[in-house]
Amino acid sequence: MAERASVGILISKLPKKNSLFGSDFLQTGEKSIPEIEAVLAAAQILRKLKSEGKNTRLFTSGLAVSWFRDKSTRTRYSFAAAADLLGLSVLDLDEEKTQVAHGETVRETATMLSFLTEVFGIRDDLYLGEGHAFMETVARAVEVGHNEGVLPKRPSVLNLQSDRDHPTQSLSDLAHLTSHFGSLKNLRGKRLVMSWAYSPSYGKPLSVAQGVCGLMTRLGMDVVLAYPDGYGLIPELERQFFKQAKESGGRFSVVHDMKEAFRNADSVYPKSWAPFSVMEEGTRMLRKGDREALVKLEKKGLAMNDKHKDWECTDAMMRSTKGGKALYMHCLPADVSGVSCKEGEVEKSVFERYRKELFLQAGHKPFIIAAMMMLTRFENPAFVLKRTLKGRTF
Amino acid sequence: MAERASVGILISKLPKKNSLFGSDFLQTGEKSIPEIEAVLAAAQILRKLKSEGKNTRLFTSGLAVSWFRDKSTRTRYSFAAAADLLGLSVLDLDEEKTQVAHGETVRETATMLSFLTEVFGIRDDLYLGEGHAFMETVARAVEVGHNEGVLPKRPSVLNLQSDRDHPTQSLSDLAHLTSHFGSLKNLRGKRLVMSWAYSPSYGKPLSVAQGVCGLMTRLGMDVVLAYPDGYGLIPELERQFFKQAKESGGRFSVVHDMKEAFRNADSVYPKSWAPFSVMEEGTRMLRKGDREALVKLEKKGLAMNDKHKDWECTDAMMRSTKGGKALYMHCLPADVSGVSCKEGEVEKSVFERYRKELFLQAGHKPFIIAAMMMLTRFENPAFVLKRTLKGRTF
Amino acid sequence: MAERASVGILISKLPKKNSLFGSDFLQTGEKSIPEIEAVLAAAQILRKLKSEGKNTRLFTSGLAVSWFRDKSTRTRYSFAAAADLLGLSVLDLDEEKTQVAHGETVRETATMLSFLTEVFGIRDDLYLGEGHAFMETVARAVEVGHNEGVLPKRPSVLNLQSDRDHPTQSLSDLAHLTSHFGSLKNLRGKRLVMSWAYSPSYGKPLSVAQGVCGLMTRLGMDVVLAYPDGYGLIPELERQFFKQAKESGGRFSVVHDMKEAFRNADSVYPKSWAPFSVMEEGTRMLRKGDREALVKLEKKGLAMNDKHKDWECTDAMMRSTKGGKALYMHCLPADVSGVSCKEGEVEKSVFERYRKELFLQAGHKPFIIAAMMMLTRFENPAFVLKRTLKGRTF
Repeated sequence: MAERASVGILISKLPKKNSLFGSDFLQTGEKSIPEIEAVLAAAQILRKLKSEGKNTRLFTSGLAVSWFRDKSTRTRYSFAAAADLLGLSVLDLDEEKTQVAHGETVRETATMLSFLTEVFGIRDDLYLGEGHAFMETVARAVEVGHNEGVLPKRPSVLNLQSDRDHPTQSLSDLAHLTSHFGSLKNLRGKRLVMSWAYSPSYGKPLSVAQGVCGLMTRLGMDVVLAYPDGYGLIPELERQFFKQAKESGGRFSVVHDMKEAFRNADSVYPKSWAPFSVMEEGTRMLRKGDREALVKLEKKGLAMNDKHKDWECTDAMMRSTKGGKALYMHCLPADVSGVSCKEGEVEKSVFERYRKELFLQAGHKPFIIAAMMMLTRFENPAFVLKRTLKGRTF
Repeated sequence: MAERASVGILISKLPKKNSLFGSDFLQTGEKSIPEIEAVLAAAQILRKLKSEGKNTRLFTSGLAVSWFRDKSTRTRYSFAAAADLLGLSVLDLDEEKTQVAHGETVRETATMLSFLTEVFGIRDDLYLGEGHAFMETVARAVEVGHNEGVLPKRPSVLNLQSDRDHPTQSLSDLAHLTSHFGSLKNLRGKRLVMSWAYSPSYGKPLSVAQGVCGLMTRLGMDVVLAYPDGYGLIPELERQFFKQAKESGGRFSVVHDMKEAFRNADSVYPKSWAPFSVMEEGTRMLRKGDREALVKLEKKGLAMNDKHKDWECTDAMMRSTKGGKALYMHCLPADVSGVSCKEGEVEKSVFERYRKELFLQAGHKPFIIAAMMMLTRFENPAFVLKRTLKGRTF
Repeated sequence: MAERASVGILISKLPKKNSLFGSDFLQTGEKSIPEIEAVLAAAQILRKLKSEGKNTRLFTSGLAVSWFRDKSTRTRYSFAAAADLLGLSVLDLDEEKTQVAHGETVRETATMLSFLTEVFGIRDDLYLGEGHAFMETVARAVEVGHNEGVLPKRPSVLNLQSDRDHPTQSLSDLAHLTSHFGSLKNLRGKRLVMSWAYSPSYGKPLSVAQGVCGLMTRLGMDVVLAYPDGYGLIPELERQFFKQAKESGGRFSVVHDMKEAFRNADSVYPKSWAPFSVMEEGTRMLRKGDREALVKLEKKGLAMNDKHKDWECTDAMMRSTKGGKALYMHCLPADVSGVSCKEGEVEKSVFERYRKELFLQAGHKPFIIAAMMMLTRFENPAFVLKRTLKGRTF
C-alpha cells in the first residue's frame, strides 16, 4: 500500500511539469482527474514528511492571506497549519478591520494585498451567486495586475468554501474514502449517500453537498443525493452531476426519503443545509440591503426545517446500510442530538461510534491545502522538495 | 556564577532524557524540583543564545495555538515571542470568532486544532473551578486523539493562567528571585510576603498568589500570606502550602495584617485579588447564566475592597522590611496610586524605585515559556539545540 | 540604469557602518539625504532578491509588533510582508483586546512588549499633537529600558503614519518618482503639485501631504501645495518646507486654486484631508473626552468640504499639465467619482488611465518598510545579506 512506500519514491512520482502550477483552485470540476490525483499524492507526501519531522518549509518568504468573510475555526486552522508547513506567514484579513467593499474596491484591494503574496485563501459561502463570483473577481484582479507588470508574481486563489464548491473539504473527504476503501479505483461502484439532515440552526451553505457530489460522480461512484422537497442544490450543478456520473461510468440519483437512500449504502454523509428557495430569497434581500427581511426569512427557514426532524441519522438507519457498517462521514461540527442540540443531524451513539473516523477525515485538510499551495506555486515540486530536504532553503 | 558559564556547558547540563517530554504544564505542583530546575536552566540557555544572536528555531514547522479566554497583552506577547524564538507559528484563537462552547464541543475543537500543533497556550482564569478544568479537558482530548491514532503527535497544553495556578508567572518570579538572591539554594529561609493589596478594580484572579505560594513553599522559603478576612485563597490549596513548607524545611503562615507581614521581609509581593466568597458566588451565577446578578456582584466586590484601602504598599511599610530594602515584586500591570488610579496597590515612589527590578522580573517570562515548550516537546533538547546551532534545521 | 545592475554590486554599495543602525524612523526630516538614499537602495536590493527567489530572512528570530491605533489594510499588509521577507514574526496589537492607556502605562506596555522585539510599527494619525508624541513616548520607553539593562536590545520604532509625517508613504512615493523620472537627480526642478481634493468622507489626516512636501522640498523639486482657504497643514511644518526648498535649491509655494496649481505640473498628487481648524478643535474635544461634540464636529467638517466639490482632478485639468501628461499619484484608496462615491477626488477616466502607475507606486511600500527594518537593525547590512545568501542563518 502507498502508505508504506518510501517518501523518495512518492516524490519521484510527482509530475515534473505540473499543470496546476500558476492556477487557482476554485472548483474541483475545473481540474482533471490526474490533477486531482496529484493533489492526493502531494498531500500524502507532505503528511509523511511531517510525521518524520522533516523540514518542508519550501518557501524562502511569502504571505498566505487568509480572507474569511464568514466565521471559521477548522478551515482557518487548516489554512494556517498548511502555510506554516510550507514556510509562509499568514496574514488574517479581518473585514471588520479593513472595510473592503464590492466592485472596484475588491479589485484594488486584491492587487494591493498581492505584492508579496503566494496564495489567497478565501471563504465566502453565505449567499448564492456571491462567493464564487467574489473569488473570480480577486483572481481576475491579480491576473490583470500580473499581466500589467504591477505584480511580480500572480498569487493563487484557493477556495476555502464558496456558494458553489468546497474543494478543500471534498478532497479531504476523497482522501479519507480512498484510505478507507483501499484505493481510488476501489471507489468505483461504491454507494455514497449525500443526505440532507435536520438541524435547529439555519443558513448552512450548500457547498459541502455540492462539492462531494461534484467530485465523487467523476470517480465512478454510485452517488445518491437525498433531501426533502425544496432542499435541492443549485439546479445547474445537479444536472452536471448526472452528466458526470454517466461519463465516469458511475451513477447519480436524487431521492426524497432518507431511509430509502441509506439502504445498502457503503458510506453516508448526512448533513444539514438551508432550503434552496430560502437561500435565493436571502440573496435578493442581501442585494437590497434589507436586513429586517433577512431576520424574518431566517424564521421561515427554521420553520421549514422543523417539518423534517425525522431526517436524523439513527442507529436504526445505519443498520440498513451495507452489512450495517457504512462509513459515516461529516465535515464537522455536527449537530449531535442531545449533545450540541436537542434534536439534530445524528444520534449520539452513531456519532460516538464514528468519532475516530471523523477525526481521521478532518485530519486530511491541512495536508490537502498544503498540497494545493505546493502544486499551484511550484512548477517542479519534486525538485523543490528534494532541495529543501537537503537543507538548502535558497 | 551561572550567568557567566559558557552556553556549551549549560547545554550539556540539560537532562539527556528529560521527564517533561510529552507532558503538559498545568501546575507547578505536578512537577518535581529537578524538573523545575530544568525549566530555569533551559530558560537561561535560551536567553543567552538569543543575546548572542544565535538561531534557536528548533522546530522545522508547527503551530503554537494561543487560546485566551480573557484579555491579555503581556502573556500573549510572551507566548508569541517564545513560539517565534523556537520557530513555531502562532495561531490566535479568538473565541468571539469561533464560538467554542463547553463539553463535547471543546473535546472536538481541541482535536481539530491539533493535527499540526505542538503546544496550546491557554488562559482561562475568571471563574473558580472553570479554567483548570477546561485545560484538563483539552489535555484529555488530545491524549485520546493521540492514543486512537487520530493525532500523529499529542500537543502539550501550557497553562497561561488558570483559576488555580499561573506557572509561567511563578517560574518567572522564581527566576527573578534566584537571580536577585544569587542562587536557588540561597532562597532557603528567605521571608517572602505574598500580600493582598487594595485595588479599585474588581475580579482579579487568585492564581498569581496561589502560584507563588505553591511554588515557593516547596523551596524552603519562609512564605507569609497576608490578606484581610474574607480574601483567602482556595482552602484546599492553602492547606497544601502548609504541608509543602513543612516538607521542604520552609515555613508558611497566614496573617491578616499587611504591616505585620512586611516586618523583616526579604521580598514583598503586594497584589490585589477578588474576595473568595465573591468569586464563589460569581461562579454559581455564571453557571446559571445570570448576567444581571454578576453585575450586582461586581458592585458588592468593589464595596468589600473599599473597606481595605489601607492595604497599600507604602514607603513607610517598605522601611519596616529587612534593612528597609526588601525586593518589591509585582506581575504587572500594577494599580499605582495617583498614576493608574486614585488609590491603589502601591505608592508611586515605591513603584518607581523598583521599576527596573519589575521589568527584569517580567523579562523572564518569554524565556520561561520557551523553556516549557522546548522541554515538553523535545526528548533530548541538548541534542536538538546543538544540531540547530550547527545550522542544521532538518 | 540601476534596475539592471547586479545584486552583488548593489549590495556592495550599502554603507559598511550605516548611521541608521539602532535608530527610529519617525520623520524623514530627521534623516540625512545619504540616509534617504540608503533606504531607496536597500529597498531596491530586497525587491531584486525577492524577484529572484532568494532567501532574505536575515533574522534568526524576533518579533515585529504591529501597533495600529486606526484602521488599516494596505500598510498593515506592507508591514507584515516586510517582516516576513526578513524573517520576523508579526504580533498584531489590537487595542480593543489590550486596553492600553496613555501616560505611565504606555511606557510600561512598550517595555513589556520589547523583550524579544526588533521593531515596532505604529500608526496613530487621527489627532493633531497625538500620534507623533505617542511614538516618541514608546521610543523613549525602550531607550530607557535598554539603558537600564532591562532590554537586551532596543527595538526601533517605525512610523506607519502619524499626525505629522508618513515616511513609509513619502519614501514609496519617492521611489516611484525616481523610477518614473529616471533618477533622484532628475527630480531637481520638476514641478510636483500636492493638492487638496474634495471627498465626501471626513477626517483624513494631514500626514500624507506633510510627508510628501517635507521630503520633496529637500530634493530640489518645485513643490506646489494647493488647498482651499482653511485647509492648511501644520503651520510650523509649512514654514519648514519653505526653508528646506531654499536650502536644496528647489521651490515651495502655496496656492489656493487647484486649476492654477496644475498648470505645467510634472506630477500631481490630489488628495483629501481634513480642515486644519476642525482637526485642532477635534483634538481639544478628544482631550476633554467629549464624544458628542466630536460627532457634531464631523458634520461641520463635511459641510466645509461640500463647498469645494470643484477640487476634483478632472481630465480637463490633467490636460493643462506639462504636455498634458503629468504623473498622477495617490496613496490609495482614492475616492473616485462615480465609483467609490458620487463626487470625489478624481474623475474615473483619470484614475483608470493611471491605474497601473498607482499600483507601481503602492508596490514600493513593503520593500521600503523592509529596508527601514534592515537598516535600523543591522549595523552592516551588506555583510548580513551576503551571509544569508550563502545559506547561513546563524
